[in-house]
Amino acid sequence: MSTTSSAVLVEPRRIDLQTFTLPEIGPDAALVRVEATGICGSDWAPYNGTWMTELPPLILGHEVVGEVVAIGPEATKRWGATEGDRVVVEESVPCNACRLCRTGRYHMCDPLHNKVGLRYGLTPVDLAPHLWGGFGEYMYVHPRSIVHRMSRSVPVEQAPLFIPLSNGIRWVERDGGTRVGDTVVIFGPGQHGLGCVIGARLAGAGTIIMVGTGRDANRLAVAKELGAHHVVNLEDAPVAEQVAALTNGELADVVVEVTSGAPGVLRDAVDCAGVGATVVVAGTREMQLATNFAPDAMLFKELTLKGVYGHDYLSVRRAIRLIESGTEPLDKLCTHTFSLNEVDHALRTLGGEGEAGAIHITVVPGS
Amino acid sequence: MSTTSSAVLVEPRRIDLQTFTLPEIGPDAALVRVEATGICGSDWAPYNGTWMTELPPLILGHEVVGEVVAIGPEATKRWGATEGDRVVVEESVPCNACRLCRTGRYHMCDPLHNKVGLRYGLTPVDLAPHLWGGFGEYMYVHPRSIVHRMSRSVPVEQAPLFIPLSNGIRWVERDGGTRVGDTVVIFGPGQHGLGCVIGARLAGAGTIIMVGTGRDANRLAVAKELGAHHVVNLEDAPVAEQVAALTNGELADVVVEVTSGAPGVLRDAVDCAGVGATVVVAGTREMQLATNFAPDAMLFKELTLKGVYGHDYLSVRRAIRLIESGTEPLDKLCTHTFSLNEVDHALRTLGGEGEAGAIHITVVPGS
Amino acid sequence: MSTTSSAVLVEPRRIDLQTFTLPEIGPDAALVRVEATGICGSDWAPYNGTWMTELPPLILGHEVVGEVVAIGPEATKRWGATEGDRVVVEESVPCNACRLCRTGRYHMCDPLHNKVGLRYGLTPVDLAPHLWGGFGEYMYVHPRSIVHRMSRSVPVEQAPLFIPLSNGIRWVERDGGTRVGDTVVIFGPGQHGLGCVIGARLAGAGTIIMVGTGRDANRLAVAKELGAHHVVNLEDAPVAEQVAALTNGELADVVVEVTSGAPGVLRDAVDCAGVGATVVVAGTREMQLATNFAPDAMLFKELTLKGVYGHDYLSVRRAIRLIESGTEPLDKLCTHTFSLNEVDHALRTLGGEGEAGAIHITVVPGS
Amino acid sequence: MSTTSSAVLVEPRRIDLQTFTLPEIGPDAALVRVEATGICGSDWAPYNGTWMTELPPLILGHEVVGEVVAIGPEATKRWGATEGDRVVVEESVPCNACRLCRTGRYHMCDPLHNKVGLRYGLTPVDLAPHLWGGFGEYMYVHPRSIVHRMSRSVPVEQAPLFIPLSNGIRWVERDGGTRVGDTVVIFGPGQHGLGCVIGARLAGAGTIIMVGTGRDANRLAVAKELGAHHVVNLEDAPVAEQVAALTNGELADVVVEVTSGAPGVLRDAVDCAGVGATVVVAGTREMQLATNFAPDAMLFKELTLKGVYGHDYLSVRRAIRLIESGTEPLDKLCTHTFSLNEVDHALRTLGGEGEAGAIHITVVPGS
Repeated sequence: MSTTSSAVLVEPRRIDLQTFTLPEIGPDAALVRVEATGICGSDWAPYNGTWMTELPPLILGHEVVGEVVAIGPEATKRWGATEGDRVVVEESVPCNACRLCRTGRYHMCDPLHNKVGLRYGLTPVDLAPHLWGGFGEYMYVHPRSIVHRMSRSVPVEQAPLFIPLSNGIRWVERDGGTRVGDTVVIFGPGQHGLGCVIGARLAGAGTIIMVGTGRDANRLAVAKELGAHHVVNLEDAPVAEQVAALTNGELADVVVEVTSGAPGVLRDAVDCAGVGATVVVAGTREMQLATNFAPDAMLFKELTLKGVYGHDYLSVRRAIRLIESGTEPLDKLCTHTFSLNEVDHALRTLGGEGEAGAIHITVVPGS
Repeated sequence: MSTTSSAVLVEPRRIDLQTFTLPEIGPDAALVRVEATGICGSDWAPYNGTWMTELPPLILGHEVVGEVVAIGPEATKRWGATEGDRVVVEESVPCNACRLCRTGRYHMCDPLHNKVGLRYGLTPVDLAPHLWGGFGEYMYVHPRSIVHRMSRSVPVEQAPLFIPLSNGIRWVERDGGTRVGDTVVIFGPGQHGLGCVIGARLAGAGTIIMVGTGRDANRLAVAKELGAHHVVNLEDAPVAEQVAALTNGELADVVVEVTSGAPGVLRDAVDCAGVGATVVVAGTREMQLATNFAPDAMLFKELTLKGVYGHDYLSVRRAIRLIESGTEPLDKLCTHTFSLNEVDHALRTLGGEGEAGAIHITVVPGS
Repeated sequence: MSTTSSAVLVEPRRIDLQTFTLPEIGPDAALVRVEATGICGSDWAPYNGTWMTELPPLILGHEVVGEVVAIGPEATKRWGATEGDRVVVEESVPCNACRLCRTGRYHMCDPLHNKVGLRYGLTPVDLAPHLWGGFGEYMYVHPRSIVHRMSRSVPVEQAPLFIPLSNGIRWVERDGGTRVGDTVVIFGPGQHGLGCVIGARLAGAGTIIMVGTGRDANRLAVAKELGAHHVVNLEDAPVAEQVAALTNGELADVVVEVTSGAPGVLRDAVDCAGVGATVVVAGTREMQLATNFAPDAMLFKELTLKGVYGHDYLSVRRAIRLIESGTEPLDKLCTHTFSLNEVDHALRTLGGEGEAGAIHITVVPGS
Repeated sequence: MSTTSSAVLVEPRRIDLQTFTLPEIGPDAALVRVEATGICGSDWAPYNGTWMTELPPLILGHEVVGEVVAIGPEATKRWGATEGDRVVVEESVPCNACRLCRTGRYHMCDPLHNKVGLRYGLTPVDLAPHLWGGFGEYMYVHPRSIVHRMSRSVPVEQAPLFIPLSNGIRWVERDGGTRVGDTVVIFGPGQHGLGCVIGARLAGAGTIIMVGTGRDANRLAVAKELGAHHVVNLEDAPVAEQVAALTNGELADVVVEVTSGAPGVLRDAVDCAGVGATVVVAGTREMQLATNFAPDAMLFKELTLKGVYGHDYLSVRRAIRLIESGTEPLDKLCTHTFSLNEVDHALRTLGGEGEAGAIHITVVPGS
């Protein structure tokens, strides 16, 4: 009976490597050897102890790419994957029975909303078979998981980018409703904001404007390489004025707000929006209240504000095809790679306490 | 050369009856004898001097029903109306050339957004031919006006209800996306909120909940007559808790916020919304900032917030057919009728300074 | 080890009662005692041997209402049902993993499209545990089934109407995009067409026109009781002319074609549609070619044609709530009830070879 | 009083150059000197006498680019253009008052549907001021025209491409609903089909497949230069089989049918469509009946078929910006340029009776 290691968050800001028994895999489940797990901005609050609720010990990591090392026959039929295949596993383990699951919104069926749904990277390590997170050598793949194959041709550190890219495609194209020729303004040049630049370019946006601060020089340069037509420093002048100057006064058709911890940015986002525009709100701020936001501004411009939370099946599938195509300069996003022993350092780098200059951070357990 | 009287708002809170020459009507315009003009909540800010900008002297009144007394041949061909017909005139006089006009959003082409567009009830009385508001014996109908015929069978004081009813239909059905069986929660039992009850019932809502306060007893009773299944007093307990109790914990599919001057209600509206719901924001608060609103709540429930501002062509047409059908107990909405000499009193009644118990107030110049 | 009877279609037009062993129910499945199973128009082709492909022996019946007599703990958690509850079971047993399942279109994941998906009423009786159809005393409920609770207050013969009502709601409201005040024309006054009348009324249609023939007098009378404003006999005059006369020349906003075996009706449906209208095509004709249909007519009126095939989760849920409400005169639809011994006669009645005057036929095994 | 020449279609297949007096331009109209007028496939039926109805003498030509030589002050305010500006004029002169105009569908308000609307290139030359078509030295610009400015940097023969490009963008993106990563199959590599290739590429299609015949070798090569990933000869094998082979059996998400005179192609288009796909029908066939089309195929795949007819405001604006950007190899489309004396030859070239190898043909009156 063989054993394996995973990095367990035992309490806020404390990660321990623990040993687990590899589970037996039944006819409708699978086991993957983790090749790489990306770090998502949403990993910070659990790590830092600032999540909405107190969390039990768990294995973080939900941008998971791995090799199938065991799989049951039912699972093979369902997922079209077999031993040796490389797969990505979405973080949702939805219940498949509720209103959300039955209407294409399975990504909202999770511990926040449903007692049956699970979620990789947020499920207690006590629950058998324990291996519910990507920061480990192996991860269990539950029968209700959403599994996609991915080509081995993708460099391992780029593989987890299916998460920021699928988010970027969904938020800009589907949620923002971006149409050919539109002006798209994106607040926040992190990995997800940069995914939105790609999404906007693919959706045919005529003008893509990335908004950042003076500290974002490197990220803004990457934004331009990925297709942003303009980058704007919000410290230079009111953003709406800068956007107006770049758009002949017409402002944006779509605004995507992907900042972190910024309670005042909704006001800026709304100010950049033209009549009838859509403002996608994807950034979180640990439930801080909006400052300086007048709802009347939504009325007088008939704006639509959309709160979004993750990706859907089609956007993940499209992101995987895009990564496989090799046409995007994704290496520019992959700034840091860490080993399983360095998960704590990796998470602190995400929070600005470790290495400098991070965009996308990957943990490669086998390294 | 015959003359006519209109009630001019010469400065905040001062209305004077003034005399004007009746204009010559060219081949593509018309003149109506005003039969009735409703008072809209949006008349208060101009009257009270709390409009976003300072306003020149003007004739208020934009819920206008009148009899065509002169019309040119081009206008007859365009509008299908002739002398003697009863018509309603939408408040927009759009430019017919901008992006908004060309994409079905002409109601947003007005002095706020466009230098060509005009708007009944907000156009300076100095601009010839002066008769740009419904609080007068006659009103000029500009060639770019939107004109609909209405049957003479409609009681005169009910005729201006095409505005609150078209708003209610558009906000609940089209903007809110209400579907058969949905739970719809409406904040604010004024004339527009009551129009939303009708809109929700027509759209097949399964559960309609009207939210008001202890002062709204009469209006809440009318809401029930119009089809609300439940009325809720927001002073009794947190609204979201009351809505949860009425919906088996599922909360609302659609929330419509139609209050006035309430900076904190957006928070309540968002709290009442279920996962994936739409919150329509129609109430204004003179640009006050939202209090107690955490944008993260939009994300974790993937809410859509829609700012809305008025009606569109189809909703007006549908409201007129509904009024003509005589099937709604619209007399319950028509609480007060005033003559042209009483416009100042009528407006103060709107603002809670005149008669008590007002829901919809109509000025009938000929009375 | 107890046994049970089901009516097996052993070859076209031959039904045998066969005996089966009741299956053991694992932790995530259930067994229902069938209370009633409705007969759907789509049962005719398999019975009659005119299905697209040759079929193995199977138990027909997919409008199933039953009492839970055994259920595993996982299934209880998933479906919220327990022993003694009345439930309806949708006909799809989708794979839960494909693109269709993951985007809310699970009803298209069936034997036609996917090798994993099953379908009640069309699954070979050879496949264990055999009880895959409603025409039997008991039916097996697979873990991937879609299960809804239904109140015991519903008369047993009305309970299976969740299928024609959910279809009617989906086809008219969601697929047709019917809006408040629209004119909706429905071709075919069978059980599904009558469900569409209810759907149209709930969606706020201003004018509902049902089209039938001289043989449909009884059904057309029921259509009027359910809310149709006009009924039209297509033998009297070209339907489009009759619709034009009833709509002031504006024709229909939404047309729903729910006839059976009529290759020429698409032409009539298109002729009744106004500029920009939607034509929902729900009727089947065993792959016969359209006659007299000019695609250019779609262009010159910018029509949308939508092929539809069954219901979705929300429409079923809404139909169940509607049936439970007891507000519809559904007894008018329930013309015939048969026992399990009479399944063959019931199916021939569906095909016009048995009893006369059928609208909706129910098999009640316990009767 | 100065005069000017236009090419009048006096009867089918007979074009005469006629002389007209240049009109006086009132305060809200304009006159343009025609720089170039493209030839559209829809010009053939009027020229050839195979239009749906008999036509009076008229000046054809509705893909018009010109220089403003006279304009009234109202018109300048409305269109933002002044003397010396280059403008394009959409073919519609809508009534601005009907349901279609008021809901963003003004392009359907034309002589087919409305007695007030006019249309460039199809209005009788008898109607003053006569200059209603682009095949002339000058064209009158009616106050209700839709006018866009275009940069002088665009080569004159490319300027009229705003029509096929706006059609391509609208049909593929808005009507087809193409999303990032989709497979788009286009039938017919004419100027509009090639515009659809551009539209599909801009909308982020993952796989673009152009379908033609052996005679289309040159056009198919252009399709590849514009972004088609694959070209398919429908004479090689059933198209659906070829598409299946190129898409791993998944078939198309969006099919656009832009052929001319092909009554059987709808069947092929439907066969290429995957479950839930949209089939846009843009090609005309002079009202010939579809052959070999089984409506049941729409049901079993839940297809949406959309008849489309021209462009809308946003797609024209986007096409103009695209042409101005100079990023597309549009010279590949511009195969033939003729003078005003050669209009008859130009039209016969369109119909395959003149020069060989035509894709887009332009008449340049000043050449």
